Amino acid sequence: MAVYTEVSDADVAAFLDAYDLGEVVALKGIAEGVENSNFLLSTTTGSYILTVYEKRVRPEDLPFFLELMEHLAARGVDCPTPIRARDGQALHTLCGKPAAIVTFLQGLCVKRPQPRHCRALGEAAARMHLAGGDFPRTRANDLSLDGWARLLNACGEGAERVETGLAAGMREELAALRAAWPAGLPAGVIHADLFPDNVFFRGDAVSGFIDFYFACTDLFAYELAICLNAWCFEPDDSFNATKARALLAGYQAVRPLAEAEIAALPVLARGAALRFLLTRLYDWLNHPPNAYVAPKDPREYIHKLRFHQGVRGPGAYGLDAAA
Amino acid sequence: MAVYTEVSDADVAAFLDAYDLGEVVALKGIAEGVENSNFLLSTTTGSYILTVYEKRVRPEDLPFFLELMEHLAARGVDCPTPIRARDGQALHTLCGKPAAIVTFLQGLCVKRPQPRHCRALGEAAARMHLAGGDFPRTRANDLSLDGWARLLNACGEGAERVETGLAAGMREELAALRAAWPAGLPAGVIHADLFPDNVFFRGDAVSGFIDFYFACTDLFAYELAICLNAWCFEPDDSFNATKARALLAGYQAVRPLAEAEIAALPVLARGAALRFLLTRLYDWLNHPPNAYVAPKDPREYIHKLRFHQGVRGPGAYGLDAAA
Repeated sequence: MAVYTEVSDADVAAFLDAYDLGEVVALKGIAEGVENSNFLLSTTTGSYILTVYEKRVRPEDLPFFLELMEHLAARGVDCPTPIRARDGQALHTLCGKPAAIVTFLQGLCVKRPQPRHCRALGEAAARMHLAGGDFPRTRANDLSLDGWARLLNACGEGAERVETGLAAGMREELAALRAAWPAGLPAGVIHADLFPDNVFFRGDAVSGFIDFYFACTDLFAYELAICLNAWCFEPDDSFNATKARALLAGYQAVRPLAEAEIAALPVLARGAALRFLLTRLYDWLNHPPNAYVAPKDPREYIHKLRFHQGVRGPGAYGLDAAA
Repeated sequence: MAVYTEVSDADVAAFLDAYDLGEVVALKGIAEGVENSNFLLSTTTGSYILTVYEKRVRPEDLPFFLELMEHLAARGVDCPTPIRARDGQALHTLCGKPAAIVTFLQGLCVKRPQPRHCRALGEAAARMHLAGGDFPRTRANDLSLDGWARLLNACGEGAERVETGLAAGMREELAALRAAWPAGLPAGVIHADLFPDNVFFRGDAVSGFIDFYFACTDLFAYELAICLNAWCFEPDDSFNATKARALLAGYQAVRPLAEAEIAALPVLARGAALRFLLTRLYDWLNHPPNAYVAPKDPREYIHKLRFHQGVRGPGAYGLDAAA
């Protein structure tokens, strides 16, 4: 959401020397992406996005992310496509940091998603899951149960500053999720951060996904659980079951869910709520006082977690286990 | 340098309804401009910059700025050109704030200007001064002597926190400048903020100026005095007379300076140094602790002011009064 690395005219010109992209005509830092510095790069051949990877992305994970985007794009999933330089590599170094150029994806984020957007999102997510089926790399989800335990320890009793009893409540929830977490459900490559900021639309159609830097190998249904949290609550944190039904119907129109996946949705949704509660809480407790970006309030995800804890079955999401 | 206003997909679509610019295909907040929110706006007809004017720009000044850009662009000076909507107006409202769309200007800022860039800047500034000759509006420079006095009072003894004796030194300097400030020199529309951030180059040629939101009616030679401060000092605050000579030679190749303008350069350069010292000092003393943008260190301009105070004549800038 900010530009952390200052890239000079000389830096970018030298960087572009390795590519067949023509001559630079404009470079503008843009407020997009979670943790990296992104620039709109215009050259005599077109518009691209230049990303400089900052410290929160592990360099050893970058080949997974870049090859995944290339794999998906080659199979018709709209996403930024890495541009390989003349040496055949997509990953290079700029200002001493890993950097890559990807294609410019048209579209806008939707600020207030409607059911029709949720349905289109579901369809596009399912197409992405199918397209990733033959992607040869895997990457463990380091923000699943073990990662949550680490974050919980790192936050410690700081959670009490947000709400009394929160630390103990999260410990209990994590233990319950460990006991109930499903095994053996269909899995593969998921985006794992399909928030409205990362989904572009043109009109009512999804024009693509961006920001694959949490992508990993995990349960397909967990992706839907993240989307239920990110797309189906109103600004007052009330749950909109019509949006949930549209999301799941869109998904199932492309990739029908197994009964076990549907039955697991409530526990997966609790896990997804805890995951974003923990990362937001950690950032809330640890952001430097002069940070460029104000941390997001973790309380939103306390409310979402409570909603899912009160759910008696997948019917709450507009589906029945026996549907 | 930041995006202060969040513009949603629905906001921009409604805003664009008033224009003949086609349909929006992308909108990205960009880190450009001093005080306003700027977006790269891509539509089915091309790329534009959408600016939302924030509180530091006075709405009553906007017609001056927008009409000036239009005037200069029509006379071949490369600068963003305001796009008029179907109602004939360039200025509209977005998210409750004044907003305008301007053309997208190609080029990059030069991070480390060389003498050839200074020469090109001088030529382009002179062409802009000539092109503004028949611009019918005027706008007083509210950051000239009276404005400096207001800033000096507003900073008060806070200046002592930056350097002991600074407040008294600036009061003396302002009194000296009031006594020595030239009258009757050639004047007209100047940009008044021609820092490297606001000058785009393609290769070694100036491709245009941006950010006209300090433009005003003032002495042409004062523009050069600002450029001497902004372009001709090295990162260690030493003065590079070769760059100054190139800047002034480039300017004079298009618009020769009168002897009185040349003779006035040292006092004008002191004034320009005091102007940026005061605004940086004010921002330094008054920035909110959670500001998006870290204020610039005012000490740089203390050093620049001292250099100009020690100058015995325009020869220091690579010129002689009798040249």
